[in-house]
Amino acid sequence: MQHFADRLQAAIIEKQNPTVMGLDPMLSYVPERIVSFYQKEVDDPLLATGLSIYEFNRRLIDSVHDLIPAVKPQLAYYEQYGIHGMEALRQTITYARKKNLLVILDGKRNDIGSTADAYARAYLGQTRWIDGTEKAAMSADALTINAYLGSDGIVPFLKQAKEHGKGLYILVRTSNPSAGDLQDLKLEDGRTVYEAMASLVSDWGKDMIGDSGYASAGAVVGATWPQQAETLRHLMPHTPILVPGYGAQGATADDTMPNFDQHGNGAIVNASRSLMCAWKKHEMDHEQFEQAARKEAMAMKQALREALQKSGRWQ
Amino acid sequence: MQHFADRLQAAIIEKQNPTVMGLDPMLSYVPERIVSFYQKEVDDPLLATGLSIYEFNRRLIDSVHDLIPAVKPQLAYYEQYGIHGMEALRQTITYARKKNLLVILDGKRNDIGSTADAYARAYLGQTRWIDGTEKAAMSADALTINAYLGSDGIVPFLKQAKEHGKGLYILVRTSNPSAGDLQDLKLEDGRTVYEAMASLVSDWGKDMIGDSGYASAGAVVGATWPQQAETLRHLMPHTPILVPGYGAQGATADDTMPNFDQHGNGAIVNASRSLMCAWKKHEMDHEQFEQAARKEAMAMKQALREALQKSGRWQ
Repeated sequence: MQHFADRLQAAIIEKQNPTVMGLDPMLSYVPERIVSFYQKEVDDPLLATGLSIYEFNRRLIDSVHDLIPAVKPQLAYYEQYGIHGMEALRQTITYARKKNLLVILDGKRNDIGSTADAYARAYLGQTRWIDGTEKAAMSADALTINAYLGSDGIVPFLKQAKEHGKGLYILVRTSNPSAGDLQDLKLEDGRTVYEAMASLVSDWGKDMIGDSGYASAGAVVGATWPQQAETLRHLMPHTPILVPGYGAQGATADDTMPNFDQHGNGAIVNASRSLMCAWKKHEMDHEQFEQAARKEAMAMKQALREALQKSGRWQ
Repeated sequence: MQHFADRLQAAIIEKQNPTVMGLDPMLSYVPERIVSFYQKEVDDPLLATGLSIYEFNRRLIDSVHDLIPAVKPQLAYYEQYGIHGMEALRQTITYARKKNLLVILDGKRNDIGSTADAYARAYLGQTRWIDGTEKAAMSADALTINAYLGSDGIVPFLKQAKEHGKGLYILVRTSNPSAGDLQDLKLEDGRTVYEAMASLVSDWGKDMIGDSGYASAGAVVGATWPQQAETLRHLMPHTPILVPGYGAQGATADDTMPNFDQHGNGAIVNASRSLMCAWKKHEMDHEQFEQAARKEAMAMKQALREALQKSGRWQ
């Protein structure tokens, strides 16, 4: 398969929109019409829950797939619904890829050696089954990972990503208020912990740079920290950035700009609740969540385009 | 439910053995007798894989449950087998708890806000299903987590742990060779990153200390770093420590001692491959993996008891 960073850049250019939609479903986000259907039709409440979640996702994908290049399911929201949640995730991934969307799986996985390899095979590679066949358990295009364990914890992910044309996004500076508890600590050499992490991330990607000029080993940098993003974009010139924190977490389109390069490439901005629950913001009926998500996705695309143009990154 | 650290300490004292058995199954660890049975009896190779994994775990548990207080399934090994792997995990947890073993789930999960809460509910708390009932998706006794994201990422886990009498183990100093890439960086105040993390962990646990004197928020400290463990035991006097790295990763019983307090409490030592694949070490037949695991578990119990006595921690 073609290089992940190149595939993502091509998809962003095709859709003219560097947005990824987070798919972080809670049962309470699913409107009554879907919930009551499955509650009536399916006896097992655990299975009915999983099917409702999948239908919610499928409808969201249908409503915006022509506008956005990628979706980002967050694993925790599926794990909370047990194996029926994981089956909803598997089906969501399959459906999204059928609709030509890239799938960035947000799992922030981390471990070492054969355990890291098991995670990497689970989501980016292939599993060997009892009949000797090798087939993906779930086949995403990229996975978020956490590098607190150092390079032993990253190499197995890099290996699977390279082998299968997949990507990684490694946590550097996260979007949350207390991100600095650890990430902002000052080192004796004057750098912060997150700057040290950025150098590691840049190194890990240096032999997997594609035609786009970007590596398949990316970084997560929260939109809520535009000043840090400025520094990090320079420290990691070949690293694609996944930018959470837009919308519900308070960051604006302008805040995300320092993550992009001068040509408007190298970053993708995530929005989860602001799209999934857009009916609230637009004071629409819950049953109209699809129309509301589309309306909000168009507004976000417009806001990002304007910010890119205003900052001279896009003509 | 009673406080996790108290329950664990009681179980360790009852079994006179601070060992936790890692359950990190690969299909290649399962002997031919089990594999060929499921391959013949079950048409779907993915389901047959999951059932083989579960039977392997169940037999391991049967072979050592009277010797050890706890098991530690590592999530990656189940996720690699997709939903059938997750079902094998769910059944393994249920079976282990039925056999009176505590279950420490090794997932190194991490995220913020509602996402961290979803992980915590998935493994320590309860999920609200479509019929309004609240029931655990998987019900472990403790979960390993990664605190790179700071306290926003920890508070939701602490909350669920407190509410349900469950525990957490937070990564401080991991057992792998490159653990130091990030964890050993020197801060301008003279501490290392892992020492700064230890202070955070100690703080997070301070209002959840049980009758045993230990908090339900523990730390992961690799057995491969006995000198760091000495420092960390002092920095975190009320923090129970989960100690990986014994056996297959090269650490000895003596290496693990600095993680224990002067009474021989406050730590539990993990062994995964050295028990699961003990037939290799003892040059026994693969089909005798259960007898080999039991033999190795008894040897490990003996080695830890001798090391505790030799170091004056146990009379």
